[in-house]
Amino acid sequence: MKSETRSKLMGVSVATLATALFKRGLRNQVIQGVHPVAPKGRNMVGPAFTLRYMPAREDRNQLSEFRNPKHPQRVAIETCPEGHVMVIDSRKDARAASAGDILITRLMMRGGAGIVTDGGFRDAATIGALDIPAYHARPSSPTNLTLHEAIEINGPIGCGDAPIFPGDIVVGDEDCVIVIPAHLAEEVADEAVEMSAYEDFVVEQVKNGQTITGLYPCTKEEHQAAFAEWRKSNGR
Amino acid sequence: MKSETRSKLMGVSVATLATALFKRGLRNQVIQGVHPVAPKGRNMVGPAFTLRYMPAREDRNQLSEFRNPKHPQRVAIETCPEGHVMVIDSRKDARAASAGDILITRLMMRGGAGIVTDGGFRDAATIGALDIPAYHARPSSPTNLTLHEAIEINGPIGCGDAPIFPGDIVVGDEDCVIVIPAHLAEEVADEAVEMSAYEDFVVEQVKNGQTITGLYPCTKEEHQAAFAEWRKSNGR
Amino acid sequence: MKSETRSKLMGVSVATLATALFKRGLRNQVIQGVHPVAPKGRNMVGPAFTLRYMPAREDRNQLSEFRNPKHPQRVAIETCPEGHVMVIDSRKDARAASAGDILITRLMMRGGAGIVTDGGFRDAATIGALDIPAYHARPSSPTNLTLHEAIEINGPIGCGDAPIFPGDIVVGDEDCVIVIPAHLAEEVADEAVEMSAYEDFVVEQVKNGQTITGLYPCTKEEHQAAFAEWRKSNGR
Amino acid sequence: MKSETRSKLMGVSVATLATALFKRGLRNQVIQGVHPVAPKGRNMVGPAFTLRYMPAREDRNQLSEFRNPKHPQRVAIETCPEGHVMVIDSRKDARAASAGDILITRLMMRGGAGIVTDGGFRDAATIGALDIPAYHARPSSPTNLTLHEAIEINGPIGCGDAPIFPGDIVVGDEDCVIVIPAHLAEEVADEAVEMSAYEDFVVEQVKNGQTITGLYPCTKEEHQAAFAEWRKSNGR
Amino acid sequence: MKSETRSKLMGVSVATLATALFKRGLRNQVIQGVHPVAPKGRNMVGPAFTLRYMPAREDRNQLSEFRNPKHPQRVAIETCPEGHVMVIDSRKDARAASAGDILITRLMMRGGAGIVTDGGFRDAATIGALDIPAYHARPSSPTNLTLHEAIEINGPIGCGDAPIFPGDIVVGDEDCVIVIPAHLAEEVADEAVEMSAYEDFVVEQVKNGQTITGLYPCTKEEHQAAFAEWRKSNGR
Amino acid sequence: MKSETRSKLMGVSVATLATALFKRGLRNQVIQGVHPVAPKGRNMVGPAFTLRYMPAREDRNQLSEFRNPKHPQRVAIETCPEGHVMVIDSRKDARAASAGDILITRLMMRGGAGIVTDGGFRDAATIGALDIPAYHARPSSPTNLTLHEAIEINGPIGCGDAPIFPGDIVVGDEDCVIVIPAHLAEEVADEAVEMSAYEDFVVEQVKNGQTITGLYPCTKEEHQAAFAEWRKSNGR
Repeated sequence: MKSETRSKLMGVSVATLATALFKRGLRNQVIQGVHPVAPKGRNMVGPAFTLRYMPAREDRNQLSEFRNPKHPQRVAIETCPEGHVMVIDSRKDARAASAGDILITRLMMRGGAGIVTDGGFRDAATIGALDIPAYHARPSSPTNLTLHEAIEINGPIGCGDAPIFPGDIVVGDEDCVIVIPAHLAEEVADEAVEMSAYEDFVVEQVKNGQTITGLYPCTKEEHQAAFAEWRKSNGR
Repeated sequence: MKSETRSKLMGVSVATLATALFKRGLRNQVIQGVHPVAPKGRNMVGPAFTLRYMPAREDRNQLSEFRNPKHPQRVAIETCPEGHVMVIDSRKDARAASAGDILITRLMMRGGAGIVTDGGFRDAATIGALDIPAYHARPSSPTNLTLHEAIEINGPIGCGDAPIFPGDIVVGDEDCVIVIPAHLAEEVADEAVEMSAYEDFVVEQVKNGQTITGLYPCTKEEHQAAFAEWRKSNGR
Repeated sequence: MKSETRSKLMGVSVATLATALFKRGLRNQVIQGVHPVAPKGRNMVGPAFTLRYMPAREDRNQLSEFRNPKHPQRVAIETCPEGHVMVIDSRKDARAASAGDILITRLMMRGGAGIVTDGGFRDAATIGALDIPAYHARPSSPTNLTLHEAIEINGPIGCGDAPIFPGDIVVGDEDCVIVIPAHLAEEVADEAVEMSAYEDFVVEQVKNGQTITGLYPCTKEEHQAAFAEWRKSNGR
Repeated sequence: MKSETRSKLMGVSVATLATALFKRGLRNQVIQGVHPVAPKGRNMVGPAFTLRYMPAREDRNQLSEFRNPKHPQRVAIETCPEGHVMVIDSRKDARAASAGDILITRLMMRGGAGIVTDGGFRDAATIGALDIPAYHARPSSPTNLTLHEAIEINGPIGCGDAPIFPGDIVVGDEDCVIVIPAHLAEEVADEAVEMSAYEDFVVEQVKNGQTITGLYPCTKEEHQAAFAEWRKSNGR
Repeated sequence: MKSETRSKLMGVSVATLATALFKRGLRNQVIQGVHPVAPKGRNMVGPAFTLRYMPAREDRNQLSEFRNPKHPQRVAIETCPEGHVMVIDSRKDARAASAGDILITRLMMRGGAGIVTDGGFRDAATIGALDIPAYHARPSSPTNLTLHEAIEINGPIGCGDAPIFPGDIVVGDEDCVIVIPAHLAEEVADEAVEMSAYEDFVVEQVKNGQTITGLYPCTKEEHQAAFAEWRKSNGR
Repeated sequence: MKSETRSKLMGVSVATLATALFKRGLRNQVIQGVHPVAPKGRNMVGPAFTLRYMPAREDRNQLSEFRNPKHPQRVAIETCPEGHVMVIDSRKDARAASAGDILITRLMMRGGAGIVTDGGFRDAATIGALDIPAYHARPSSPTNLTLHEAIEINGPIGCGDAPIFPGDIVVGDEDCVIVIPAHLAEEVADEAVEMSAYEDFVVEQVKNGQTITGLYPCTKEEHQAAFAEWRKSNGR
């Protein structure tokens, strides 16, 4: 992705992006049911690199499987491109882990931009202290082999009921994670920057006692003018 | 509501209130499944002012709807009386937002005493930093139009499986939110103040090594006497 | 339990223990769906002392029941042996409380090592501030009588879909709680200490830029040698 | 509603209607999670007449309430216009009944076209034997007072996550129930009749060994011609 | 139980019994979420004989366990007294079976009056054809050992969120199953017989075109008189 | 698959197969939460041919997509080999259909052995009348495009929390559906035939009044002898 697009997306909220996608008829792009393992004070932004789990069949998922250098979970961690966000389809099942602190530390060292699962992470307290954004449903200590078999790297998946295609742009803030279809990323980023400027203006007005009627959304010309003024004085 | 009643309810826990209502045969007054967006260090207390959502039909819920100055969600925010708690029936569906930071900032500016939804708020991190108590199930970035249509202001509703009538007294602490039927508010407030005094006495005794048997609940006269003494010395 | 075993278990993670039990064919020992009321910065470790709730029948569960000095919930608190963890089977129903701050304060004073329910605690904010680890699904203000009747002390139970027998060793960290069958506690504690040493070594290597391939799990001799070296220099 | 529209809707499937509404951007008009109490061998068709339940507060929902001739549940049954379908918002909670055989018998006698709840009916076996279509989630013996208070007649509601406005056209077959916005009923009925003709033609072709490719949907001219022929010979 | 009580309970519906218990303040006696494996055309009536499952620990639940003549599941089947209903607490988990056709055939041969689980039965199609009423949540083929360990015979349990004590009277019809506390069985049976007579009278009136207002419940004297007449002519 | 294996599997129950797989350490092979659309009076048996759905993104899932002759859902139906069972991963979401009567009729005409989804079928009443076994969670009228995008044909999937690999042997009876790993099919079929013979013998004994103790499972030599005799006389 373009670094300008990344910068823009670092500065807008998932709520604003959700509205921009809603305008385009996309209603299901928020990954439902996940939250930050720990707040990072900045957005997570990057193209999706995916991993899909299927239910584990016991004979194929003994601890010895991890000794296989081609085990897809480990290969995914070692091949996720720099700046990408790993998105894991764990079938919304957090009863066993999607990954743990060692793998996520490795992903961080390799330059990963973040990681999301609709299941849970083990060693979550440790992961929360790492300098990489991570989102999950809840902490989950059992090894992934208990219920999940990593089966496919970088194919199209579902995560938290949202559709994810490799290369889609993933953005997470302190509330939620959203997936922007790759071809829309730039225009949506631009629009969201504009929307954010207006929202910031509105918040300031509302904190000064202004009613939202006619202001949010803007249906009165006077607010358009005031906003133009505000942009100038605030360099937005 | 009387300001004395409000004061009393500011100083008791939802757990104590739940027991006082249980005594009166009311078992379902706690709004299930909600928690504070961020702890505020004080109770939320006020009469309920309600908003009801129904499932959104797509043709009635385009972004342009918000331009309508009579849109019930916006009207509700602009008409909620000072000191009231807005309670939203979102059918326990947090997949789309019940409200966001701009509207809740406006509610705060207008003197609202708090806001509760059995769905989720967008911009939750921002809302958590505002000086108004807010309770929800979880953060939710998609605009309410995605799944919810605001359809009725200040009618009787359900919220988190609890029955809410406009004017019922809503109390929230760091754990939960409870709804006291309007006609019971004063007597329940009085009783809860009494119960809290005894509970505080008990905690002190227990921290000094006392057994709970006979003490909680009080079935021994000696504790009655000690409590009377304690009230005197503690001005309770 | 032996104090050495306790010490060992104080220093390992639930994730590591889950893997050690997985190796032994035990896949369901993590209590699903519970988390710390507040992080304590140390593990909770102790033999299980159990309490079982059944659904409350209204005529048997009026407030007056608590006046009975033999009420099983209160008896359980007053008889839980020092150093034990009270584990409560609340049928995964957090709509009413499993216990509150007064009882848990008493348990703490009596030397209890912790408390776990697959329901919820009332007065959770207060409990979180106590010096005793507590785990639940979520805060829940209604008194237990609303939905739960304490029916059996120290029998075999389920908690969060895990099987618990009295005397099993319960370990909780900031993520999760796990139950180690009593007869396996020592060997699992030993193994987990070994595993933790290797994991700590791995984390250090990964933070230095090492790939996980061949390192985690260890399939290359060079890492065995480096680990032996590391143990020596780190006194592990 | 026009009797021609009713006739048309008696002859098409809910699946076909769902597709016709999907074309118009309406994706959530099927009442999720309900099924016929017993198959009736014919569609249920009629304008919606609604009833809304809220959670029951115990002091307002004693058996004596039913003695009130203005109890909304009973009034709803006695005022539902002939040919209408009563649709009940029971908040998807089937733990207590929405109605029983006596009331539904009365509705039948008054000419009601059917009844739907997203909760459950008591006396369901008896209701299944009546000559009126009824749809619910599952049988439920407890009286509605246990959990539900009838609070509003013929307002907008949600039922099984679908939006229902009074006067919308409700159609049920052996699979599901769908709600057609009133203003679309005629055009959707017409279109569904056309679609059904083509589907019947397709089924016949497929049973003769034809591939679906190019046939369903029709992308080959030869099928258009064959269909025209088929309509003529079959009088469709 | 008295054979007269049994006879009375054979002739009334679970819905009527639920109302009679509701009058006495008991709101949770219906076993939620179960239905007949197959309709039997008669009620199931008998005192409860209970079996409790806990989550299965794998090392204690290998197939060889069944060779133990003291395995509680098998002992329960072989000791359930004639005329009793076996009620199984399967923690509402139907992912593994509570019992299968062989055991239920044996129970039938021993004179069992029926069997209920809040989980599922394997061989359900075969069980449905036996001459013994059986109720469950859904068919479930995996052996109970997969998830359930039979741990206690004839203690107090929960089943489908209802409280069950051994000896409580269990009644099932084509809709649901209800549990009458033992000490109330006779008076509730008597009352239900009376209520059923009036309900049958009402149905007849309603089928003749009578409104329910004033009739159900009876608030008009004229209906009292007509009912008295009806009882005489119908021998009720 | 061998036709002998198929024949054997036509004559055994899913419950028996589940036990045979349990013996081999496989506990999760039953597809949870599905049942026959209509009983067919015979087992469904065949190798799995899979289809995977992901969540639908609205811009990729308009009705026009079906005009594409390469749409994976339609291609799957047209390429599923004779004698195979189509197994669909619908992410356990029955809010939109997995397939309808036209496609399933085509599958039947092409010689498909059956179809399973962990979602729902539209036109279910029609499908139930076809001469091909079909299993789902519940009827669902909305077109698949509403929520599902067909994304992959014949890869490994999850269905009802069970792992499915193409070529695994799928067996359905009136209760449930199970998946036998391909390499185990023959030995499991053989073992199940043996087990079924003994179970049939047991049922006969139990119907004659025999206790299950020592008989099921067989721990007494006398039963072994009687069984040998029974096999001879019954040609098993």
